[in-house]
Amino acid sequence: MAAEKTLNDLFLETLKDIYYAEKQILKALPKMAKAAQAQESKAAFLQHAEETHGQIERLEQVFEQIGKPAKGKTCEAILGIIEEGQSIMEDFKGTAALDAGLIAAAQAVEHYEMARYGTLKAWAQQLGMTDAVTLLDATLKEEEATDQKLTQLGVSQANQKAA
Amino acid sequence: MAAEKTLNDLFLETLKDIYYAEKQILKALPKMAKAAQAQESKAAFLQHAEETHGQIERLEQVFEQIGKPAKGKTCEAILGIIEEGQSIMEDFKGTAALDAGLIAAAQAVEHYEMARYGTLKAWAQQLGMTDAVTLLDATLKEEEATDQKLTQLGVSQANQKAA
Repeated sequence: MAAEKTLNDLFLETLKDIYYAEKQILKALPKMAKAAQAQESKAAFLQHAEETHGQIERLEQVFEQIGKPAKGKTCEAILGIIEEGQSIMEDFKGTAALDAGLIAAAQAVEHYEMARYGTLKAWAQQLGMTDAVTLLDATLKEEEATDQKLTQLGVSQANQKAA
Repeated sequence: MAAEKTLNDLFLETLKDIYYAEKQILKALPKMAKAAQAQESKAAFLQHAEETHGQIERLEQVFEQIGKPAKGKTCEAILGIIEEGQSIMEDFKGTAALDAGLIAAAQAVEHYEMARYGTLKAWAQQLGMTDAVTLLDATLKEEEATDQKLTQLGVSQANQKAA
């Protein structure tokens, strides 16, 4: 009989989920930057792509800490979120509302990441994985900061242009 | 030639997106409550189902305010998020880690809602829709409170049991 699954299994499954998600996000962000109209929007998406590289490296360090190979697992959630962003790109192409829609799509991505990193950090705390907590918390804080920055960018620029 | 799309169009599309999402969430929550092991987890999911009814009514009021029929639009993001929750239910059925996984799944749902209501509220502010801002903000605050409550439930109970 297989041993009963525990929080360690949940942690690993969710680590694989966000590892896959980050790699999808890394592919989506340059497309969003290319599609965006304002320089500030383009810059925000490219900066987040840059950050995402670092976040992927941190995840690889956590995989190493638990002695598992860094491997992703298809994450239907992020595929759905990115698909909605692509629809915005197509449906609002060439309109004044495009950037506002792209920023909203990016914030849905950020919130998915915040949910996952918040959960992983809490589980790492419960499991006494101090080094993993530090890494996961660093990424969580970056995601929160990016989300706030996108809110500001929407309010100060894109939403006004779109209206 | 069709008129150029503006923030009003984005607002309506996103309203339809979250209206569809809320109806999917309303179907998923009782299943999660049934699957959960601890009474506190069951109660949290059922309470959120109750809140979701009110949130759907608020969305219907916003549709009315903008003179459009309350109509959903398939939201791939929420379908993906709920699908991941179902996988947790199946993969961790009967294990001590189940509730921790269900709580994580519910928090991914909450974060999607927070992203959408935060965006809709900002757009309603830009569009001068004062009554809609009040309604959307009321739901946003409920989602934030539910997310914090789920974090507490995980930390104080489910994660410990799972470890």
